[in-house]
Amino acid sequence: MTELAPLGRRITAEAVGTAALVAVVVGSGIQAQQLSQDVGVRLLANSLATVFGLGVLIVLLGPISGAHFNPVVTLAAWWTGRTTGDGPAPREVLGRVGAQIVGAVGGAVLANAMFAKPLVSWSTHERFAGHLWLGEVVATAGLVLLVLGLVRTGRTHLAPIVVAGWIGAAYWFTSSTSFANPAVTIGRAFTDTFAGIAPSSVLAFIGAQLVGTVVGLGLLAALFGHRADADESVIAPHGEPEQRDVTRSTRH
Amino acid sequence: MTELAPLGRRITAEAVGTAALVAVVVGSGIQAQQLSQDVGVRLLANSLATVFGLGVLIVLLGPISGAHFNPVVTLAAWWTGRTTGDGPAPREVLGRVGAQIVGAVGGAVLANAMFAKPLVSWSTHERFAGHLWLGEVVATAGLVLLVLGLVRTGRTHLAPIVVAGWIGAAYWFTSSTSFANPAVTIGRAFTDTFAGIAPSSVLAFIGAQLVGTVVGLGLLAALFGHRADADESVIAPHGEPEQRDVTRSTRH
Amino acid sequence: MTELAPLGRRITAEAVGTAALVAVVVGSGIQAQQLSQDVGVRLLANSLATVFGLGVLIVLLGPISGAHFNPVVTLAAWWTGRTTGDGPAPREVLGRVGAQIVGAVGGAVLANAMFAKPLVSWSTHERFAGHLWLGEVVATAGLVLLVLGLVRTGRTHLAPIVVAGWIGAAYWFTSSTSFANPAVTIGRAFTDTFAGIAPSSVLAFIGAQLVGTVVGLGLLAALFGHRADADESVIAPHGEPEQRDVTRSTRH
Amino acid sequence: MTELAPLGRRITAEAVGTAALVAVVVGSGIQAQQLSQDVGVRLLANSLATVFGLGVLIVLLGPISGAHFNPVVTLAAWWTGRTTGDGPAPREVLGRVGAQIVGAVGGAVLANAMFAKPLVSWSTHERFAGHLWLGEVVATAGLVLLVLGLVRTGRTHLAPIVVAGWIGAAYWFTSSTSFANPAVTIGRAFTDTFAGIAPSSVLAFIGAQLVGTVVGLGLLAALFGHRADADESVIAPHGEPEQRDVTRSTRH
Repeated sequence: MTELAPLGRRITAEAVGTAALVAVVVGSGIQAQQLSQDVGVRLLANSLATVFGLGVLIVLLGPISGAHFNPVVTLAAWWTGRTTGDGPAPREVLGRVGAQIVGAVGGAVLANAMFAKPLVSWSTHERFAGHLWLGEVVATAGLVLLVLGLVRTGRTHLAPIVVAGWIGAAYWFTSSTSFANPAVTIGRAFTDTFAGIAPSSVLAFIGAQLVGTVVGLGLLAALFGHRADADESVIAPHGEPEQRDVTRSTRH
Repeated sequence: MTELAPLGRRITAEAVGTAALVAVVVGSGIQAQQLSQDVGVRLLANSLATVFGLGVLIVLLGPISGAHFNPVVTLAAWWTGRTTGDGPAPREVLGRVGAQIVGAVGGAVLANAMFAKPLVSWSTHERFAGHLWLGEVVATAGLVLLVLGLVRTGRTHLAPIVVAGWIGAAYWFTSSTSFANPAVTIGRAFTDTFAGIAPSSVLAFIGAQLVGTVVGLGLLAALFGHRADADESVIAPHGEPEQRDVTRSTRH
Repeated sequence: MTELAPLGRRITAEAVGTAALVAVVVGSGIQAQQLSQDVGVRLLANSLATVFGLGVLIVLLGPISGAHFNPVVTLAAWWTGRTTGDGPAPREVLGRVGAQIVGAVGGAVLANAMFAKPLVSWSTHERFAGHLWLGEVVATAGLVLLVLGLVRTGRTHLAPIVVAGWIGAAYWFTSSTSFANPAVTIGRAFTDTFAGIAPSSVLAFIGAQLVGTVVGLGLLAALFGHRADADESVIAPHGEPEQRDVTRSTRH
Repeated sequence: MTELAPLGRRITAEAVGTAALVAVVVGSGIQAQQLSQDVGVRLLANSLATVFGLGVLIVLLGPISGAHFNPVVTLAAWWTGRTTGDGPAPREVLGRVGAQIVGAVGGAVLANAMFAKPLVSWSTHERFAGHLWLGEVVATAGLVLLVLGLVRTGRTHLAPIVVAGWIGAAYWFTSSTSFANPAVTIGRAFTDTFAGIAPSSVLAFIGAQLVGTVVGLGLLAALFGHRADADESVIAPHGEPEQRDVTRSTRH
C-alpha cells in the first residue's frame, strides 16, 4: 500500500471518485431521458457517457487510491491480499466502503441538483426479479474476474480501458443494465430518474452482487490458478508488464 | 505453446471466453430489441456492446489461451504453425473447438436466462442467401488476415483493439452482420431473438466462414509474403514489437 | 517552456487548434440538427464528433503549444507554475487567451460557412439558469483537475484520451452540456444553431467556469497534496511516466 | 522506402486496403439505410463503422505500404520527401494512385454485391455546391496536416487512431461528410446508395481535395516550421517517439 497516497487521500479519492461516477451515471440518464423518446438511444447515451467517465476517473485516481469506487472490488482486494499482506487492512476496508457509499449518495444529489430536480427523490423504479439478479451476478463476477485477472498478470495499467469497456458491454448484455456495485446501487436509490432503483429493490441487488463476487473469485482460480500454485512466469514483474504478456495473446 | 497456461486452463479459457462472447452478442441484442423500435439503433447497441465485450475478453484471456474463441482462428493457427511447431497440435485443436462450441451454446442459454426467456428456443431468423454468404466470406477472411498479420509482424498485443474494431466495422458493412465464427453461429441458433439464426441456416454460414478462412490465408500470403521468403526484418522480435513496425507506418 | 515550439508557433497553434475545436463542435451540431429529429441522437453525434476531434487536436498540437485551446487551462497552468517557473509568463497568457478567443470565433464562422449559413448569426439559445451554471462549475472543475492531475503524476501523454473522454462524459452528465471553456463559449455565441449560446448568457457561463477552475484547483490540492509537500516519488520523472504510475492503479 | 515491403506488395496493399475501406464506407451506408429511417442514426452507424474499419486497416497494412489508401496522402508524401529522398519516386506515386483507384472501384462493387445490389449503379446523389467544396477543403487539409505532422514529430505509430478519429469527426462537422480522398470519391460514384456521389459531382470534389492538400501543407509549415529550419529536437529519433514528445503536451 506504500506506493499509493497516504490513507486520508486514499479515502478522499474513493469518495470523490465514486461521487463523480454516480453523477455521471445519474446525470447522463436524466439528460438522455429529457432529450430522446427512444429508450434505446437513452441507454446508448447513458452507457457511452459511463464508459468515458469511468475510464477517465480510473486514470485520474488510480495512482491515489487504486480507484476502486466499489465495495466489492475493495472486498475482493482484501480477500485476495489477506495472506500476502498486499490488500487493504480491515480498518481501511471499512473506511473505503464508507467513503464509497457517502460519495455515491453525494453524486446522486449533485446530479439531481445539476438538472434542477429535488435534491433527493426516492426512486420508484422497481428492479426486483430473479432474472435481474442473475444479470447482477454475471456483471459483478466479470468485473471482479477482470480486475483481479489484471492484477495477477501484472497489467493493472490496462484497468481504465478494460473496466470501462466491461461496464459498457454489461450495460447492454445484462438484463439489470449492470449496476455491479453496492455503493452505486445505494446512491441510485436517491433519484427518481432514468438510472434510479427503488429502495425496496436495493438489498437484493447487493446480495446478487456479493454472490457475483464469489463467482468471480471462483472463475479467477479456475482460469488463473491458485496464486500459490501459479507458475511464477505468469506473474509478470512490475515495470515491464504489457510486452511479455500480451505478445503471447494469439501466439502458440 | 509453453508460454501460455497449461492445457486444462487453456481449454477452460476458450469455453468461458466464447460463452461470455455469445452472452454479450445475444444479450445485448435482446436488450436492444426490447428498448428501441429503430433497427438501426438496435444494431448500434448490439455492435458497440460486442466491440467492448470482445476487446475486454481478449485482453483478459489472451495470456491464458491466446483468446481464439473461434474455430477458424484455431484452425488457421494450426495450419500456419504446422511446419514450425508453433501452432496447437491436432488434439488440442479438437479440444479447443469442442470447448468453443459448448461455451457458445452455454452463452446463448445464459443470455436467454438473464432476460427471462426460455433457456432454449430455436431461432426462426432465416439467414439463407448468397449475398449473406458473401458477407461471411469477407468478414471471416478479414478476421483471419488480421489475426495472422499481427502474428507475422509481432504485434499480437494489438489484437484486442484490432479484432474488436474489425468486428465493429463488419457488423455494419457486411450484409450478414458478420458472424465470422462457426461456434458463435451454432450458439446463436439457440435463441429466437435479435441475434439468432435459424438452425437451417447454420451449415451454409459455417461453409462460407471456412471459405473465408482460405481467402484470408491467401491474402496473408499475397500481402505478407510466404514466411519462408519473408525478410527476417519483417518479423519483429518479441519484446519490442510496436516501436519498430508501427513507426514505419506512413514513412518512406 | 523551452521544450515546446517558439512563441509565435505556440500562439498560432492555440488559434488554429481552438478554431478547429469550435468548428467541430458547431459543425457537427448543425449536421446533427439537419439529419435527425431525435435530440438524443443529435447530442450523441455532437458529443462523439467532439470526442474524436478534440483528442486528435491534442495529439497533433500538444508538442507545439501544449494544446490548451482553453483560457482556464492556460490560467491554471500559469497559477500552478508561477512559483516554479514552469508555467507561461503573464504576457504569454494574454497572447494565448487572445489567440484562443480569435480562433474560437473563426471556427464558428468557418462552421457556418461550411453549412451555407450566414457567416455570423447571433445565437438565440438562452442558457441562463442556476442549474446550468452548476453544470459548468462541475465540468470545468473536472477538466482542470484532470489536466493538472496528469501533470502532477507525469502522465501528460494521456491527455488526448483523458481530456476527450471527460468532455464526452460531461456533454451528457452536466445539464449545460459542458462548455467548460470561455473561448469556446464566446465562439458559440456566433452561430444560431444547435451548439449556440445567446450572447446574453455568455458572461454568466464564463463566471461559472472561473468558479469551476478554483474548485478544480482545490480538489487538486485535496487529492494530490500540495506540490511542496508532495513526496517526490509521486512525480514521475519524464521519459518513463506510464509504467510506474499506472501499474499501481488497482494494486495494494 | 527500404523499411517497407517490396514494391509489388506495397502496391497490392494499397489496392486491398483502399478496396476494404470503400467496402466499409459503402457497405455500412447500405446497411444503415436499410435499418433506420433516422438519417442521423444512419450517419452515426456509417461514421462509427468507418472509424473502426479505417483504424484497423492502417494498423494491418501500415508495415507493408505505409497505409496511404489515398492519392492526396501519396502526393503529399512525394512532395515533402522530394528533396530528402524519403518520399516515393514518381513512378511509385503513379502505381499507388492507380492501385488506389482500382481498389476503390472494386470495394464499391464488392459492397454492392454483398447487399444484392447491381454490381454497378451510378449514384444519383448530387453533391455539387460551394459549401460542400469548402467542407472537402477543410477535411482534406486537416488530414494532410495530421499525417505529415505525425511524421514530423516521429509519431506515425499513432496514425491508426488519429487518422480514424479525424475522419470520425469530419464525417459530422464538415458539410460534405468528409470524402477527403480522390480514389474513394471515384469509387463511391459506382453505387446508388447512401454513401454514393453522382459522377457529375466527382471532379469538383477532387479539385477541392487538391486545394485542401495545399492548404494542409501550408498549415504544416506554419505550425511545424520548415523542415530545414526545424530545430532538430522537434524531430524525435525513431524508436523512442512517443515518450519525449507527448510528455510535453501540456507542460511548460
